[in-house]
Amino acid sequence: MKKAMKNILGREILDYIEGYGEVRPFMGAFANYGERAKASVTLRSVKPGEKKLMANIEEALDKVGIKDGMTLSFHHHLRNGDYVLNQVMASVAKRGVKDIHVAATGIFPIHEPLVEYIKKGIVTKISVNYISPGPVAKAISQGLLQKPAVLMSHGGRPRAIESGDLHIDVAFIAAPTADAYGNLNGVGGPTACGTLSYAVADAFFADKVVAVTDHLAPYPACPIEITQDFVDYVVQVDSIGDANGIVSGTLTVTKDPVGLRIAKMAAQLINEAGYIQNEMSFQTGAGGTSLAVAAEVRQFMKEKKVVGSFAAGGITGYIVDMLNEGLFRNLFDVQCFDLQAVASYRENPRHQAMSGSLYGNPHDKGAIVNNLDVMILGATEIDTDFNVNVVTGSDGIIMGASGGHNDTAAGAKIAIIVTNLTKGRLPVVKDRVTTVTTPGETIDVLVTERGIAINPRRTDLLEKLKDSELPIMAIEELKKLSENLTGVPETIEFTDRVVAVVEYRDGTVIDVVRQPKD
Amino acid sequence: MKKAMKNILGREILDYIEGYGEVRPFMGAFANYGERAKASVTLRSVKPGEKKLMANIEEALDKVGIKDGMTLSFHHHLRNGDYVLNQVMASVAKRGVKDIHVAATGIFPIHEPLVEYIKKGIVTKISVNYISPGPVAKAISQGLLQKPAVLMSHGGRPRAIESGDLHIDVAFIAAPTADAYGNLNGVGGPTACGTLSYAVADAFFADKVVAVTDHLAPYPACPIEITQDFVDYVVQVDSIGDANGIVSGTLTVTKDPVGLRIAKMAAQLINEAGYIQNEMSFQTGAGGTSLAVAAEVRQFMKEKKVVGSFAAGGITGYIVDMLNEGLFRNLFDVQCFDLQAVASYRENPRHQAMSGSLYGNPHDKGAIVNNLDVMILGATEIDTDFNVNVVTGSDGIIMGASGGHNDTAAGAKIAIIVTNLTKGRLPVVKDRVTTVTTPGETIDVLVTERGIAINPRRTDLLEKLKDSELPIMAIEELKKLSENLTGVPETIEFTDRVVAVVEYRDGTVIDVVRQPKD
Repeated sequence: MKKAMKNILGREILDYIEGYGEVRPFMGAFANYGERAKASVTLRSVKPGEKKLMANIEEALDKVGIKDGMTLSFHHHLRNGDYVLNQVMASVAKRGVKDIHVAATGIFPIHEPLVEYIKKGIVTKISVNYISPGPVAKAISQGLLQKPAVLMSHGGRPRAIESGDLHIDVAFIAAPTADAYGNLNGVGGPTACGTLSYAVADAFFADKVVAVTDHLAPYPACPIEITQDFVDYVVQVDSIGDANGIVSGTLTVTKDPVGLRIAKMAAQLINEAGYIQNEMSFQTGAGGTSLAVAAEVRQFMKEKKVVGSFAAGGITGYIVDMLNEGLFRNLFDVQCFDLQAVASYRENPRHQAMSGSLYGNPHDKGAIVNNLDVMILGATEIDTDFNVNVVTGSDGIIMGASGGHNDTAAGAKIAIIVTNLTKGRLPVVKDRVTTVTTPGETIDVLVTERGIAINPRRTDLLEKLKDSELPIMAIEELKKLSENLTGVPETIEFTDRVVAVVEYRDGTVIDVVRQPKD
Repeated sequence: MKKAMKNILGREILDYIEGYGEVRPFMGAFANYGERAKASVTLRSVKPGEKKLMANIEEALDKVGIKDGMTLSFHHHLRNGDYVLNQVMASVAKRGVKDIHVAATGIFPIHEPLVEYIKKGIVTKISVNYISPGPVAKAISQGLLQKPAVLMSHGGRPRAIESGDLHIDVAFIAAPTADAYGNLNGVGGPTACGTLSYAVADAFFADKVVAVTDHLAPYPACPIEITQDFVDYVVQVDSIGDANGIVSGTLTVTKDPVGLRIAKMAAQLINEAGYIQNEMSFQTGAGGTSLAVAAEVRQFMKEKKVVGSFAAGGITGYIVDMLNEGLFRNLFDVQCFDLQAVASYRENPRHQAMSGSLYGNPHDKGAIVNNLDVMILGATEIDTDFNVNVVTGSDGIIMGASGGHNDTAAGAKIAIIVTNLTKGRLPVVKDRVTTVTTPGETIDVLVTERGIAINPRRTDLLEKLKDSELPIMAIEELKKLSENLTGVPETIEFTDRVVAVVEYRDGTVIDVVRQPKD
């Protein structure tokens, strides 16, 4: 036990990490398929006549028998507007319960109260698949959590839940609309957030499920997304969140000329590589440059009169417009990124929800990412093996988690990183990224304002684009260009303390984050 | 082992039945709740790039490794128009595979080829929750099956599947629309049948899932009801069935004056008992008299300007009309009984699907039946303890299975049996029904053309209706009236051979069917 080893990417990890357990080392993006067992679930069956509506969160905590050491889960469709995690954890903290594992799909600056609970040992572990830069990420980096945080992907989390790797004692579901018997939807009520997709695995596999709503609708709360047969208790509170907080981060096409130049090149490459065609599928993040790529792709699609099969992802109004223009037949939506997406999901049956598992779980019978043609992604760092970091900043501090990054990169026919060549006067292309989130074998192209690098594994792409006028070059050249601008940065120094474990979507450990020396 | 015993209803059963196994005796409708574990599922995870579309049923059978002793499942949304069970079983039979357990949600006269397979030992066991009078039912009664048939309810079957009591090796899903990656819906294509609800538990819990379609749609086959993450293979065939066969049995309001009289009395009783009120919920079978009750209830609702919360069940055009008139806010649909229901389900988001489990599984966190106010049911026989038989005719031959009978009776606030007092010159009210399907403790009222009997357990109802002008009398009186008309029938004689085991919805054995002496 506690033997040092290197995984297939050469990242140094121990075979056993205190507070995490035994390490299954990352073996390659497609090494870990085959037969997979789902966990058995034990539930309390409900007789006719029983009531599920509790007076308040306290009563629900009594009913579920909250106690030290439990894993409580939350989902982040309300993003930086979410009140539910804080409300529940405040009640938990008040009880003197300790050693809680918070398994949240996403953590935002609004969840700052967690820092206090971490300091007090009320929260000792956090598992998360999306985390904004902010107080909780910083607290994790500072080593305040007793056990390492586990950073997952959007597909990896439902995989972990369904396989039993992540056992949830109580799932709390923020429900913009609920009826008193536990039918839930996200399209009605003052805090409508659209689909509740990330909460689906929690609802199916947690021991107990508590819905928290501020909009108690008459029975049945149609259109139901999570049905009563998966919900134990319902609690009504004054407010589950601030609908305006759903929109957080950049959700419009960038106006920055550098970003626009990158987007133009990326779209040109997609076109020259032959991906702008009928039945194409497409996904992009909600960053300004990524959306700018969508804008350019949109033009190509219109010019070529192409109808795509679907666009997927967290959905923005921008993608909704493309649906409504007939550029895609359908949308698969795991999370509505803005209120236009919420409205579209509510009203347009061609705008479909997908659970987190359907979105990206590598161990189901085929996730939607498997059917993606073109995926546009960002990066904090990328190395000359095309490994990508979106977890740590160049200061070594945690500022993100995979989200759908390594899920979509694995599934898509072409996964393209779009990024400025330098960020904050630091080079983006490095010999070795600080932390690997997404393995280079799943990244096909890097597009920067100064040039494009194609992964040498993609000989087909290199061949296809050999006469292109696009500035295609080796990634080592981009690294040099990058370093010419910024100089070679000093290496960050870390202590031995592992503050976070980065799980690849299949549950293997692709890297760890150590505490930076200050 | 093999000790004779009586269950709580006094039905004689062995504690072990050859070909069925150990018997858990029925202990009462509400005796068997509490913690329940769901089975673990092992599936084959699907890598990006893998194909699911098979050339034909043969190739799919190869892929799933079909072999002796397997359990194959089917669903009956295409009812007497279904070609899929026959096509698959013909391929299975051709291979010389033996000892197959056919676990079908419903069996209709069209499935007559099963009789030949039964005789040849290709099919040795059948589990079913709905069976029409016809060749297969007759073959079971004649003792041709090597193992006893298991007669379940619509809620009991998903309970059995989810708990692991009924392990399915391969589920075959008749999919009116499918894409090549296994997204399925029932609303498109030439054989559109509406919801696929009964197949949901099969898709979630079978080892392998094969979709059989005659309408291969472009990816993704939205609106998706069963998603790709639950489907292993897709097969395209010329035709999965005859859409006209979906409509089978009586689906219009009866014109028979006796039936109309019964319906009028039943509705009057529902009204006097106070169930015609805002938020009411309602379900009725698709029989002519049951629909006549719906017609009367509709009048009461209109007169009182009542808006109900939901109607549920297999849905007919008649109930769709009530939705469209605003008499109910929503429909919960487990099976579209006619093409008007199919169209409504396709177009109206207030017409919602419910899985078989959500419909009636007693061991989930609360089925829809738990929220039913008024349930209208039929009966072949009813005894003076209000136990109901819908399984065997008065000749002892199998002519049905519970369907939703004992699920809805257990859940509804008032479960009303509507039936003529005599059938085929035999009395309907008896001292002891031939076979118990639904325990008397869950039946509240019997309405016949000659009088109404209220279960003495319902002292509240008796009190409420004590000044009613309805012809309310003891059930023993109805029995006498019934026998006055027909005489006391001769007792049917049975051999000791158990040809079918009748499972109550919770998986306990409520009765067995023995082979009648001829």
